[in-house]
Amino acid sequence: MPLPLTLADWRAAYAEPGASPRALLAPVLARRHGDDPAWILRCDEAFIETQLQRLDDALQRGAAASLPLFGVPFAVKDNIDVAGLPTTAACPAFAHTPQRHATVVQRLLDAGAVLVGKTNLDQFATGLVGTRSPYGAVPNSVDAAYVSGGSSSGSASVVARGLVAFALGTDTAGSGRVPAGFNNLVGLKPTPGALPMAGVLPACRTLDTVSVFALTVADAARVTALIEGATDEPRHQSWPARPAWFGNGRELRIGVPAQPGCDAALGYDAAFEQALEQLRAWGLQPQPVNMQPFFDVARLLYEGPWVAERYTVVRELIERSPEAIDPVVRGVIAAARAHDAAAAFDARYALEALRAQIAPLWSQLDVLMVPTAPTCPTLAAVAAEPVRRNSELGRYTNFVNLLGLAALALPSGFTPRGLPFGITFIAPGGSDAALAQLGARWEAARDLPLGAGLRDATAADRLLYATPAAAPTLQLAVVGAHLEGMPLHGQLSERGCRLIERTCSAPNYRLYALPNTQPPKPGLVRCGGHEDGQAIVLEVYEMPLDAVGSFLALIPPPLGLGSVQLADGRWVKGFICEPAALAGGTDISSFGGWRGWLENR
Amino acid sequence: MPLPLTLADWRAAYAEPGASPRALLAPVLARRHGDDPAWILRCDEAFIETQLQRLDDALQRGAAASLPLFGVPFAVKDNIDVAGLPTTAACPAFAHTPQRHATVVQRLLDAGAVLVGKTNLDQFATGLVGTRSPYGAVPNSVDAAYVSGGSSSGSASVVARGLVAFALGTDTAGSGRVPAGFNNLVGLKPTPGALPMAGVLPACRTLDTVSVFALTVADAARVTALIEGATDEPRHQSWPARPAWFGNGRELRIGVPAQPGCDAALGYDAAFEQALEQLRAWGLQPQPVNMQPFFDVARLLYEGPWVAERYTVVRELIERSPEAIDPVVRGVIAAARAHDAAAAFDARYALEALRAQIAPLWSQLDVLMVPTAPTCPTLAAVAAEPVRRNSELGRYTNFVNLLGLAALALPSGFTPRGLPFGITFIAPGGSDAALAQLGARWEAARDLPLGAGLRDATAADRLLYATPAAAPTLQLAVVGAHLEGMPLHGQLSERGCRLIERTCSAPNYRLYALPNTQPPKPGLVRCGGHEDGQAIVLEVYEMPLDAVGSFLALIPPPLGLGSVQLADGRWVKGFICEPAALAGGTDISSFGGWRGWLENR
Repeated sequence: MPLPLTLADWRAAYAEPGASPRALLAPVLARRHGDDPAWILRCDEAFIETQLQRLDDALQRGAAASLPLFGVPFAVKDNIDVAGLPTTAACPAFAHTPQRHATVVQRLLDAGAVLVGKTNLDQFATGLVGTRSPYGAVPNSVDAAYVSGGSSSGSASVVARGLVAFALGTDTAGSGRVPAGFNNLVGLKPTPGALPMAGVLPACRTLDTVSVFALTVADAARVTALIEGATDEPRHQSWPARPAWFGNGRELRIGVPAQPGCDAALGYDAAFEQALEQLRAWGLQPQPVNMQPFFDVARLLYEGPWVAERYTVVRELIERSPEAIDPVVRGVIAAARAHDAAAAFDARYALEALRAQIAPLWSQLDVLMVPTAPTCPTLAAVAAEPVRRNSELGRYTNFVNLLGLAALALPSGFTPRGLPFGITFIAPGGSDAALAQLGARWEAARDLPLGAGLRDATAADRLLYATPAAAPTLQLAVVGAHLEGMPLHGQLSERGCRLIERTCSAPNYRLYALPNTQPPKPGLVRCGGHEDGQAIVLEVYEMPLDAVGSFLALIPPPLGLGSVQLADGRWVKGFICEPAALAGGTDISSFGGWRGWLENR
Repeated sequence: MPLPLTLADWRAAYAEPGASPRALLAPVLARRHGDDPAWILRCDEAFIETQLQRLDDALQRGAAASLPLFGVPFAVKDNIDVAGLPTTAACPAFAHTPQRHATVVQRLLDAGAVLVGKTNLDQFATGLVGTRSPYGAVPNSVDAAYVSGGSSSGSASVVARGLVAFALGTDTAGSGRVPAGFNNLVGLKPTPGALPMAGVLPACRTLDTVSVFALTVADAARVTALIEGATDEPRHQSWPARPAWFGNGRELRIGVPAQPGCDAALGYDAAFEQALEQLRAWGLQPQPVNMQPFFDVARLLYEGPWVAERYTVVRELIERSPEAIDPVVRGVIAAARAHDAAAAFDARYALEALRAQIAPLWSQLDVLMVPTAPTCPTLAAVAAEPVRRNSELGRYTNFVNLLGLAALALPSGFTPRGLPFGITFIAPGGSDAALAQLGARWEAARDLPLGAGLRDATAADRLLYATPAAAPTLQLAVVGAHLEGMPLHGQLSERGCRLIERTCSAPNYRLYALPNTQPPKPGLVRCGGHEDGQAIVLEVYEMPLDAVGSFLALIPPPLGLGSVQLADGRWVKGFICEPAALAGGTDISSFGGWRGWLENR
């Protein structure tokens, strides 16, 4: 039997009679042995045994089904605290052993997941290559001559090779995306502030997020949904709640770099062109976007004072034992000393100015599609030019967290040589759920094998059964002038409503054409027990909950919003009508609906 | 005839037949002559004439009534740009003459107000005393031995003495509040970010707000409402929209410093006790609050790197010609050089941690009442100890903008010696409208003379006819289980609804007790033309618009939300009922309402 890979695999495996974590995880744990630079630490038998006993207990109590990640193996980047294990951040001299799990780790363990080890990274999460570590350079999981990408190099590698079902990374300037792109993985980088950061070693504290690597969008989204959510920890960014989907009843508005500038020799140029073809195959018209303001934001990050945030983390060590730090990383971080407090504020002003400059773009576009990285260097090329090769990789990732945006890195295809090529969808902060929906659609269309060629994906792998949180919505049935194509439909579109169902009411309704209404409107009336009725055609929309008030304000008497029963017996909210209006109305029920009456009267 | 003082006075004056700005403003303009350290610049005749001609034109076009501040004289602090006049920030060597008005000035001129001059300030808005200026120390308008307070010293002085109807100040750490407190004025310090800052010389750009000085809350609120509102300029703070009132259908929850520490010798101690008495007279129970976390925030501001924001403004001048800057101000600002970028980030982390620590307080309290300043020094005392006397004054103001809070400084009384004593209400960002409502109530209760004893206030002066913007609301009529004291009333309270009216429906309604409802509910039905009806008792609530959706979601069939006509003919939104339910219902209209039926059935 092949090892389970995706969450769907693990659910299926545990659904077998007699299945236990102890038995199913044994081959997974056996595979962790041997020399593998992706790992900094593999949990010892005692640590694993404690977890297995906890799951055995749950199994005996019959509680396994209530643990959404029951017995699923995972790994965390070694800048995330696990109680009792050292956190090294890939710097042995910096290592300390925390007493508490990071909040995100605690939530995963509470969900039944099994931690199998801590993964390698560019030291202090400072890098995008995956080579800046005394624990070794992590090779690409598909072609070992190339880099894995970083800084979450190990987390990407162990997921791509199927050693764990998912892994946590962190992402300040691309560390959760670039390695996903290089290893044919999904890299979900949530809106800054959406995941709790307690117990995560900061890189740039005002910018950092935890990120999730998985083989599918469904898995990344499910894990994110389980670990996201408010704590009372300090927050450095906030964002408006946004709806659960893009589109607002119209075509997705998607922007792409006007000049992508991908590495032609590597085949990335053609690969991005294929990604554009995918959009066109969907009938979309990608809009060219001048990326210069985004690049200006990125320049602030690397040439400006944000590096001082990294310095605050390692201040004591870099001053006491500079030789303990990787020389490339040391060079990057030591540059902080050149920035004074005035420069820190000046850079903040410059960022706010660029944010204001970019903001209008998000009223014209729902989402940006960019190459995750414009090129992928070999390990040898990075060794020869460690700073230059690194800095090329962040072109489409560096600016994202500074602007408070959400991003989802996705596999897009392979170069002729067989190297993975990835794209990233970027959208305003709070769009995590909508990005997951879009990503699932993308993944289904591309239909690529999982990770480092582990196997083809199945429909079960890709079933998006949980997404990150979005603004709540209300289902609302409309029967008249708000139907698609009717005069008041715009009141739904402008509120970001989404058509979710064309159906009928329960069979006990009547529809009346109301007199003296402009535009003409019907009234839907539920019959009492003694009256005849019939099913009336309607459309059910999802409306953001906070938009309902302004919609109600527009509805004139005799209409209002109440409850409507659908053909299948469900109740949703929807249009109702005061009794008084019916006297002067025309019973048009026999036409089956408002559209039928307008067309056939 | 006495000179008009308040906006109500000016409206009344212009309502007289033949009234013109030219005639009414002549005595105001005449009073600006002579030596007065409150002014840095008085607009010359040509500048005034241009404004008068514009108003004459409006008068001739019959457009005067559409200008809400038609012919009302005002002044602005001299760190706010007026096109064609130098902006000095009280530093002649720094003076420059802008080409454009600050956005707030432009909006006032567009509203018909007449700028008569620019006012003195602590240089670069760095101070709370009003003495740090080469244009002279501004004396207190009530007792010239004492300071005016700063940094908006001149703006407070000219309003308190009735030389203008209102004036703009700025407020970073108290500059819009302390001078209000010392001069028996209203000082409205909006939520940071609520007023446009383009054309305002920064002090600390991430913290600054424009502020409004006026004789009454009504005037300060009206002016704020006219100048607030979004522009596309960069923003440094954001905040959630909040409702237009405090209380949520319950008693105002008000906190006060556990240890106010007001100057007993000056009579401030007793004066604050009188303010507490006022709260108790309203039936409120002020809750003692440990202010230490707020004071820790304030310490960040003055001992930390925010001073580097001031340095960024004057960098060139302080490095080239340090002697051009007031020595006390220079000493404050030059301290910025000691802070590096890492310190700037460390302070930001510390602020976020304190903000998280303080946040829970705002779920227990609606508002804090503090002394505006704990003492008021003499000019002589400040001259002797310029830094120490200054720093005492910011105890209850320094922390406010760092936490993104809104504040309203109000007159509270006079000491035995006759010095004004003020209190400040502080509330979460976005509470500006609610603060204005509370402030108007406070002002009416205290019933103090205007400004520097100009005259007693009238009801017309205090009519609050405009407030700063608040989150939009919907008026909703309830007739049954949501009435006050009924089982579902909590659904209104928890949404922050406010009872605005107990009234009846129009006379053409009937009320039915619905069968099988739990808790028991009635259905309100509007009669058709041929049916009998009667007026039904109901309550009208204001509900935040974005809360309507979650309220609708709770309403079961056969009820819903539609339109209800009130006794006076107005339509509001409110409960309606599907026709089907009436068959099994009991007509209880004769009881006049749900309460009448429950009590008398």
